Amino acid sequence: MGDNIKEIPPRSGTAFTIDAGQILTVIDPLGGQVADLLAVSRVDTAEMISSGRTLDYAESIYLTTGNLLYSNRSNVMLEIIEDTVGRHDFLLTPCSEATFRLCYDNEPPHQGCLGNLHHALEPYGIAEDAIPVAFNCFMNVPVDGATGKLKVLPPLSKAGDFIRFRAHMDLIIGLTACSAPASNGGSFKPIHYSIG
Amino acid sequence: MGDNIKEIPPRSGTAFTIDAGQILTVIDPLGGQVADLLAVSRVDTAEMISSGRTLDYAESIYLTTGNLLYSNRSNVMLEIIEDTVGRHDFLLTPCSEATFRLCYDNEPPHQGCLGNLHHALEPYGIAEDAIPVAFNCFMNVPVDGATGKLKVLPPLSKAGDFIRFRAHMDLIIGLTACSAPASNGGSFKPIHYSIG
Repeated sequence: MGDNIKEIPPRSGTAFTIDAGQILTVIDPLGGQVADLLAVSRVDTAEMISSGRTLDYAESIYLTTGNLLYSNRSNVMLEIIEDTVGRHDFLLTPCSEATFRLCYDNEPPHQGCLGNLHHALEPYGIAEDAIPVAFNCFMNVPVDGATGKLKVLPPLSKAGDFIRFRAHMDLIIGLTACSAPASNGGSFKPIHYSIG
Repeated sequence: MGDNIKEIPPRSGTAFTIDAGQILTVIDPLGGQVADLLAVSRVDTAEMISSGRTLDYAESIYLTTGNLLYSNRSNVMLEIIEDTVGRHDFLLTPCSEATFRLCYDNEPPHQGCLGNLHHALEPYGIAEDAIPVAFNCFMNVPVDGATGKLKVLPPLSKAGDFIRFRAHMDLIIGLTACSAPASNGGSFKPIHYSIG
Protein backbone atom coordinates (compact mmCIF):
# COMPACT_ATOMS: atom_id res chain seq x y z
CA MET A 1 0.00 0.00 0.00
CA GLY A 2 1.61 3.26 -1.17
CA ASP A 3 2.31 6.10 1.23
CA ASN A 4 -0.61 8.18 0.04
CA ILE A 5 -3.13 5.34 -0.05
CA LYS A 6 -5.60 5.27 2.83
CA GLU A 7 -7.70 2.31 3.95
CA ILE A 8 -11.38 2.22 4.92
CA PRO A 9 -11.88 -0.89 7.10
CA PRO A 10 -14.69 -3.34 6.23
CA ARG A 11 -18.24 -2.07 6.96
CA SER A 12 -17.12 1.45 7.83
CA GLY A 13 -16.94 4.89 6.26
CA THR A 14 -15.05 8.14 6.26
CA ALA A 15 -15.24 11.72 5.02
CA PHE A 16 -12.59 14.14 3.77
CA THR A 17 -12.24 17.21 1.57
CA ILE A 18 -10.76 17.56 -1.91
CA ASP A 19 -10.15 20.70 -3.93
CA ALA A 20 -11.27 21.51 -7.46
CA GLY A 21 -8.77 19.95 -9.85
CA GLN A 22 -7.64 17.19 -7.49
CA ILE A 23 -7.87 13.52 -8.46
CA LEU A 24 -9.64 10.97 -6.22
CA THR A 25 -8.93 7.29 -6.88
CA VAL A 26 -11.19 4.67 -5.26
CA ILE A 27 -9.56 1.23 -5.27
CA ASP A 28 -11.02 -2.21 -4.59
CA PRO A 29 -7.88 -3.86 -3.15
CA LEU A 30 -9.22 -7.43 -2.86
CA GLY A 31 -11.99 -7.36 -5.49
CA GLY A 32 -15.76 -7.73 -5.17
CA GLN A 33 -16.30 -4.82 -2.75
CA VAL A 34 -18.63 -1.83 -3.14
CA ALA A 35 -17.76 1.74 -2.03
CA ASP A 36 -20.63 4.24 -1.70
CA LEU A 37 -19.46 7.74 -2.67
CA LEU A 38 -21.18 11.02 -1.77
CA ALA A 39 -20.07 14.47 -2.91
CA VAL A 40 -21.17 17.71 -1.25
CA SER A 41 -20.17 21.28 -2.12
CA ARG A 42 -17.81 22.84 0.44
CA VAL A 43 -19.26 26.30 -0.33
CA ASP A 44 -22.85 25.30 0.50
CA THR A 45 -23.64 21.82 1.85
CA ALA A 46 -27.20 22.02 0.47
CA GLU A 47 -25.60 21.37 -2.95
CA MET A 48 -25.11 17.61 -3.26
CA ILE A 49 -24.60 14.88 -5.81
CA SER A 50 -27.83 14.04 -7.67
CA SER A 51 -28.51 10.70 -9.34
CA GLY A 52 -31.60 12.06 -11.08
CA ARG A 53 -29.79 15.02 -12.68
CA THR A 54 -26.79 12.89 -13.66
CA LEU A 55 -28.75 10.03 -15.26
CA ASP A 56 -30.91 12.55 -17.14
CA TYR A 57 -27.92 14.39 -18.64
CA ALA A 58 -25.90 11.19 -19.31
CA GLU A 59 -28.98 9.48 -20.84
CA SER A 60 -27.75 6.28 -19.20
CA ILE A 61 -28.09 4.43 -15.89
CA TYR A 62 -24.48 3.17 -16.20
CA LEU A 63 -21.66 5.67 -15.97
CA THR A 64 -17.98 5.26 -16.78
CA THR A 65 -14.94 7.15 -18.14
CA GLY A 66 -15.98 10.50 -19.60
CA ASN A 67 -19.24 10.81 -17.66
CA LEU A 68 -19.89 13.80 -15.41
CA LEU A 69 -21.56 13.58 -11.99
CA TYR A 70 -23.91 16.53 -11.42
CA SER A 71 -25.27 18.22 -8.30
CA ASN A 72 -28.92 18.96 -7.48
CA ARG A 73 -28.16 22.45 -8.91
CA SER A 74 -27.00 20.90 -12.21
CA ASN A 75 -23.36 21.83 -11.66
CA VAL A 76 -20.60 19.32 -12.44
CA MET A 77 -19.09 17.95 -9.21
CA LEU A 78 -16.92 15.08 -10.45
CA GLU A 79 -15.75 13.68 -13.78
CA ILE A 80 -14.91 10.00 -14.20
CA ILE A 81 -11.47 10.07 -15.86
CA GLU A 82 -10.47 6.38 -15.60
CA ASP A 83 -12.39 3.21 -14.77
CA THR A 84 -11.04 -0.34 -14.93
CA VAL A 85 -14.42 -1.95 -14.13
CA GLY A 86 -17.17 -0.18 -16.11
CA ARG A 87 -20.03 -1.23 -13.88
CA HIS A 88 -21.25 0.93 -11.00
CA ASP A 89 -24.69 1.71 -9.57
CA PHE A 90 -26.42 5.08 -9.27
CA LEU A 91 -29.99 3.89 -8.59
CA LEU A 92 -30.02 2.72 -4.97
CA THR A 93 -29.67 4.55 -1.65
CA PRO A 94 -26.96 3.60 0.85
CA CYS A 95 -27.82 0.46 2.83
CA SER A 96 -29.20 1.25 6.28
CA GLU A 97 -30.59 -0.35 9.40
CA ALA A 98 -33.96 -0.39 7.58
CA THR A 99 -32.38 -2.22 4.64
CA PHE A 100 -31.37 -4.99 7.02
CA ARG A 101 -34.84 -5.02 8.59
CA LEU A 102 -36.66 -5.14 5.24
CA CYS A 103 -34.27 -7.16 3.05
CA TYR A 104 -32.10 -9.34 5.32
CA ASP A 105 -34.25 -10.89 8.01
CA ASN A 106 -31.59 -13.54 8.77
CA GLU A 107 -28.82 -10.98 9.33
CA PRO A 108 -28.04 -9.05 12.50
CA PRO A 109 -28.93 -5.38 11.88
CA HIS A 110 -26.12 -2.98 11.00
CA GLN A 111 -26.16 0.80 10.61
CA GLY A 112 -24.95 0.23 7.06
CA CYS A 113 -23.51 2.79 4.69
CA LEU A 114 -26.21 5.31 5.63
CA GLY A 115 -25.18 5.20 9.30
CA ASN A 116 -21.49 5.25 8.41
CA LEU A 117 -21.93 8.20 6.04
CA HIS A 118 -24.09 10.03 8.54
CA HIS A 119 -21.48 9.74 11.29
CA ALA A 120 -18.65 10.68 8.93
CA LEU A 121 -20.51 13.69 7.48
CA GLU A 122 -22.10 14.96 10.71
CA PRO A 123 -19.05 17.11 11.58
CA TYR A 124 -19.61 18.94 8.28
CA GLY A 125 -23.20 19.74 9.29
CA ILE A 126 -24.91 17.26 6.94
CA ALA A 127 -28.13 15.72 8.26
CA GLU A 128 -28.90 12.02 7.79
CA ASP A 129 -32.22 12.80 6.04
CA ALA A 130 -30.33 14.86 3.44
CA ILE A 131 -28.15 11.93 2.31
CA PRO A 132 -29.27 11.10 -1.26
CA VAL A 133 -28.60 8.20 -3.63
CA ALA A 134 -24.83 7.69 -3.55
CA PHE A 135 -22.64 6.84 -6.53
CA ASN A 136 -22.01 3.22 -5.64
CA CYS A 137 -18.55 2.39 -7.02
CA PHE A 138 -18.24 -1.24 -8.20
CA MET A 139 -21.89 -2.05 -7.30
CA ASN A 140 -23.38 -4.39 -9.90
CA VAL A 141 -27.12 -3.84 -10.41
CA PRO A 142 -28.28 -5.24 -13.74
CA VAL A 143 -31.73 -4.12 -14.90
CA ASP A 144 -34.05 -6.10 -17.18
CA GLY A 145 -35.14 -3.47 -19.68
CA ALA A 146 -38.38 -5.28 -20.54
CA THR A 147 -39.71 -5.81 -17.01
CA GLY A 148 -37.71 -3.22 -15.08
CA LYS A 149 -36.65 -5.86 -12.55
CA LEU A 150 -33.26 -5.24 -10.96
CA LYS A 151 -30.86 -7.59 -9.17
CA VAL A 152 -28.04 -6.83 -6.77
CA LEU A 153 -25.20 -9.14 -7.91
CA PRO A 154 -21.56 -9.42 -6.77
CA PRO A 155 -19.30 -6.67 -8.15
CA LEU A 156 -17.38 -7.31 -11.38
CA SER A 157 -14.27 -5.68 -9.84
CA LYS A 158 -11.08 -7.76 -9.38
CA ALA A 159 -8.27 -7.09 -6.90
CA GLY A 160 -6.65 -3.75 -7.68
CA ASP A 161 -9.41 -2.43 -9.91
CA PHE A 162 -10.16 1.26 -9.49
CA ILE A 163 -12.22 4.25 -10.59
CA ARG A 164 -10.69 7.72 -10.78
CA PHE A 165 -12.47 11.07 -10.56
CA ARG A 166 -11.42 14.67 -11.17
CA ALA A 167 -13.11 17.19 -8.85
CA HIS A 168 -14.75 20.14 -10.63
CA MET A 169 -15.44 22.03 -7.40
CA ASP A 170 -14.21 22.08 -3.80
CA LEU A 171 -15.91 19.08 -2.23
CA ILE A 172 -16.61 17.14 0.92
CA ILE A 173 -16.48 13.44 0.03
CA GLY A 174 -18.17 10.65 2.01
CA LEU A 175 -16.87 7.17 1.17
CA THR A 176 -17.60 3.71 2.58
CA ALA A 177 -16.65 0.08 2.42
CA CYS A 178 -20.21 -1.16 1.97
CA SER A 179 -21.93 -3.26 4.65
CA ALA A 180 -24.69 -5.09 2.74
CA PRO A 181 -24.14 -8.83 2.12
CA ALA A 182 -25.74 -9.03 -1.36
CA SER A 183 -23.85 -6.00 -2.71
CA ASN A 184 -20.45 -7.49 -1.83
CA GLY A 185 -20.80 -11.15 -2.75
CA GLY A 186 -21.41 -12.09 0.91
CA SER A 187 -18.05 -10.97 2.38
CA PHE A 188 -16.90 -7.61 3.72
CA LYS A 189 -13.58 -6.21 2.52
CA PRO A 190 -11.74 -2.89 2.88
CA ILE A 191 -11.67 -0.06 0.34
CA HIS A 192 -8.58 1.98 -0.48
CA TYR A 193 -8.45 5.52 -1.78
CA SER A 194 -5.91 8.16 -2.67
CA ILE A 195 -5.99 11.89 -3.40
CA GLY A 196 -3.51 13.38 -5.82
CA MET B 1 -65.04 17.13 -15.08
CA GLY B 2 -66.60 15.90 -11.80
CA ASP B 3 -67.16 18.27 -8.89
CA ASN B 4 -64.22 16.93 -6.93
CA ILE B 5 -61.77 16.87 -9.85
CA LYS B 6 -59.23 19.68 -9.93
CA GLU B 7 -57.17 20.80 -12.91
CA ILE B 8 -53.48 21.68 -13.08
CA PRO B 9 -53.00 23.91 -16.15
CA PRO B 10 -50.28 23.03 -18.68
CA ARG B 11 -46.68 23.66 -17.49
CA SER B 12 -47.70 24.48 -13.94
CA GLY B 13 -47.81 22.83 -10.53
CA THR B 14 -49.64 22.81 -7.22
CA ALA B 15 -49.38 21.48 -3.68
CA PHE B 16 -52.01 20.23 -1.22
CA THR B 17 -52.32 17.99 1.81
CA ILE B 18 -53.89 14.54 2.12
CA ASP B 19 -54.48 12.47 5.23
CA ALA B 20 -53.42 8.88 5.93
CA GLY B 21 -56.04 6.58 4.39
CA GLN B 22 -57.17 9.05 1.71
CA ILE B 23 -57.04 8.16 -1.97
CA LEU B 24 -55.31 10.39 -4.52
CA THR B 25 -56.11 9.85 -8.20
CA VAL B 26 -53.89 11.46 -10.84
CA ILE B 27 -55.60 11.57 -14.24
CA ASP B 28 -54.20 12.28 -17.69
CA PRO B 29 -57.34 13.85 -19.23
CA LEU B 30 -56.08 14.19 -22.82
CA GLY B 31 -53.39 11.49 -22.87
CA GLY B 32 -49.63 11.71 -23.35
CA GLN B 33 -48.95 14.07 -20.41
CA VAL B 34 -46.55 13.55 -17.48
CA ALA B 35 -47.29 14.59 -13.86
CA ASP B 36 -44.36 14.80 -11.43
CA LEU B 37 -45.47 13.79 -7.93
CA LEU B 38 -43.63 14.56 -4.69
CA ALA B 39 -44.68 13.37 -1.23
CA VAL B 40 -43.46 14.95 2.01
CA SER B 41 -44.41 14.01 5.58
CA ARG B 42 -46.64 16.58 7.27
CA VAL B 43 -45.13 15.72 10.66
CA ASP B 44 -41.54 16.47 9.59
CA THR B 45 -40.82 17.88 6.13
CA ALA B 46 -37.29 16.40 6.22
CA GLU B 47 -39.00 13.04 5.52
CA MET B 48 -39.57 12.84 1.77
CA ILE B 49 -40.23 10.36 -1.00
CA SER B 50 -37.07 8.44 -1.95
CA SER B 51 -36.52 6.82 -5.35
CA GLY B 52 -33.44 4.97 -4.11
CA ARG B 53 -35.22 3.36 -1.13
CA THR B 54 -38.29 2.50 -3.21
CA LEU B 55 -36.45 0.92 -6.15
CA ASP B 56 -34.27 -1.08 -3.72
CA TYR B 57 -37.26 -2.54 -1.84
CA ALA B 58 -39.37 -3.08 -5.00
CA GLU B 59 -36.39 -4.66 -6.83
CA SER B 60 -37.64 -2.92 -9.96
CA ILE B 61 -37.25 0.43 -11.75
CA TYR B 62 -40.90 0.23 -12.92
CA LEU B 63 -43.67 0.48 -10.34
CA THR B 64 -47.37 -0.24 -10.68
CA THR B 65 -50.40 -1.55 -8.74
CA GLY B 66 -49.31 -3.10 -5.44
CA ASN B 67 -46.00 -1.27 -5.18
CA LEU B 68 -45.21 0.89 -2.16
CA LEU B 69 -43.46 4.29 -2.35
CA TYR B 70 -41.02 4.73 0.55
CA SER B 71 -39.54 7.77 2.27
CA ASN B 72 -35.86 8.50 2.93
CA ARG B 73 -36.55 7.00 6.41
CA SER B 74 -37.84 3.77 4.82
CA ASN B 75 -41.45 4.38 5.86
CA VAL B 76 -44.29 3.72 3.41
CA MET B 77 -45.75 7.02 2.15
CA LEU B 78 -48.02 5.90 -0.70
CA GLU B 79 -49.31 2.63 -2.13
CA ILE B 80 -50.27 2.32 -5.80
CA ILE B 81 -53.74 0.73 -5.69
CA GLU B 82 -54.83 1.11 -9.33
CA ASP B 83 -52.97 1.96 -12.53
CA THR B 84 -54.42 1.92 -16.05
CA VAL B 85 -51.05 2.65 -17.73
CA GLY B 86 -48.31 0.58 -16.07
CA ARG B 87 -45.42 2.78 -17.15
CA HIS B 88 -44.07 5.57 -14.96
CA ASP B 89 -40.58 6.87 -14.24
CA PHE B 90 -38.75 7.07 -10.92
CA LEU B 91 -35.19 7.69 -12.18
CA LEU B 92 -35.09 11.33 -13.26
CA THR B 93 -35.31 14.61 -11.36
CA PRO B 94 -37.99 17.19 -12.18
CA CYS B 95 -37.15 19.22 -15.30
CA SER B 96 -35.67 22.62 -14.48
CA GLU B 97 -34.24 25.73 -16.05
CA ALA B 98 -30.93 23.85 -16.21
CA THR B 99 -32.62 20.98 -18.06
CA PHE B 100 -33.63 23.43 -20.75
CA ARG B 101 -30.13 24.94 -20.83
CA LEU B 102 -28.39 21.53 -21.08
CA CYS B 103 -30.90 19.45 -23.09
CA TYR B 104 -33.06 21.82 -25.16
CA ASP B 105 -30.88 24.48 -26.70
CA ASN B 106 -33.59 25.36 -29.26
CA GLU B 107 -36.28 25.96 -26.62
CA PRO B 108 -36.92 29.11 -24.60
CA PRO B 109 -35.95 28.38 -20.98
CA HIS B 110 -38.73 27.51 -18.53
CA GLN B 111 -38.61 27.04 -14.76
CA GLY B 112 -39.93 23.53 -15.39
CA CYS B 113 -41.36 21.14 -12.83
CA LEU B 114 -38.57 21.97 -10.37
CA GLY B 115 -39.50 25.65 -10.36
CA ASN B 116 -43.22 24.85 -10.24
CA LEU B 117 -42.76 22.40 -7.35
CA HIS B 118 -40.49 24.83 -5.53
CA HIS B 119 -43.04 27.65 -5.68
CA ALA B 120 -45.91 25.34 -4.72
CA LEU B 121 -44.01 23.77 -1.79
CA GLU B 122 -42.30 26.93 -0.51
CA PRO B 123 -45.28 27.83 1.76
CA TYR B 124 -44.73 24.47 3.49
CA GLY B 125 -41.11 25.39 4.22
CA ILE B 126 -39.53 23.04 1.65
CA ALA B 127 -36.31 24.32 0.05
CA GLU B 128 -35.65 23.91 -3.68
CA ASP B 129 -32.36 22.05 -3.01
CA ALA B 130 -34.27 19.46 -0.97
CA ILE B 131 -36.54 18.44 -3.87
CA PRO B 132 -35.54 14.88 -4.79
CA VAL B 133 -36.32 12.58 -7.73
CA ALA B 134 -40.12 12.77 -8.14
CA PHE B 135 -42.40 9.86 -8.99
CA ASN B 136 -43.11 10.85 -12.58
CA CYS B 137 -46.63 9.58 -13.34
CA PHE B 138 -47.06 8.48 -16.99
CA MET B 139 -43.42 9.30 -17.88
CA ASN B 140 -42.05 6.73 -20.31
CA VAL B 141 -38.32 6.11 -19.86
CA PRO B 142 -37.27 2.77 -21.34
CA VAL B 143 -33.81 1.51 -20.35
CA ASP B 144 -31.62 -0.78 -22.45
CA GLY B 145 -30.51 -3.36 -19.89
CA ALA B 146 -27.35 -4.27 -21.81
CA THR B 147 -25.94 -0.77 -22.31
CA GLY B 148 -27.82 1.17 -19.61
CA LYS B 149 -28.88 3.78 -22.18
CA LEU B 150 -32.22 5.43 -21.43
CA LYS B 151 -34.62 7.33 -23.67
CA VAL B 152 -37.37 9.79 -22.80
CA LEU B 153 -40.29 8.77 -25.05
CA PRO B 154 -43.92 10.01 -25.22
CA PRO B 155 -46.13 8.62 -22.44
CA LEU B 156 -48.16 5.46 -23.10
CA SER B 157 -51.19 7.04 -21.37
CA LYS B 158 -54.40 7.63 -23.36
CA ALA B 159 -57.14 10.17 -22.57
CA GLY B 160 -58.68 9.35 -19.20
CA ASP B 161 -55.95 7.02 -17.99
CA PHE B 162 -55.11 7.34 -14.30
CA ILE B 163 -52.99 6.12 -11.41
CA ARG B 164 -54.45 5.89 -7.90
CA PHE B 165 -52.58 5.99 -4.59
CA ARG B 166 -53.55 5.33 -0.97
CA ALA B 167 -51.74 7.55 1.53
CA HIS B 168 -50.06 5.67 4.41
CA MET B 169 -49.25 8.84 6.36
CA ASP B 170 -50.38 12.47 6.51
CA LEU B 171 -48.72 14.06 3.51
CA ILE B 172 -47.99 17.23 1.61
CA ILE B 173 -48.23 16.43 -2.10
CA GLY B 174 -46.57 18.42 -4.89
CA LEU B 175 -47.97 17.69 -8.35
CA THR B 176 -47.29 19.17 -11.80
CA ALA B 177 -48.34 19.11 -15.40
CA CYS B 178 -44.82 18.59 -16.75
CA SER B 179 -43.07 21.26 -18.82
CA ALA B 180 -40.42 19.33 -20.77
CA PRO B 181 -41.07 18.81 -24.51
CA ALA B 182 -39.57 15.30 -24.82
CA SER B 183 -41.43 13.93 -21.79
CA ASN B 184 -44.84 14.93 -23.16
CA GLY B 185 -44.59 14.08 -26.86
CA GLY B 186 -43.93 17.72 -27.72
CA SER B 187 -47.21 19.27 -26.49
CA PHE B 188 -48.25 20.56 -23.08
CA LYS B 189 -51.57 19.44 -21.62
CA PRO B 190 -53.31 19.75 -18.24
CA ILE B 191 -53.37 17.15 -15.47
CA HIS B 192 -56.44 16.36 -13.36
CA TYR B 193 -56.50 14.99 -9.83
CA SER B 194 -59.00 14.10 -7.16
CA ILE B 195 -58.83 13.30 -3.45
CA GLY B 196 -61.34 10.89 -1.97
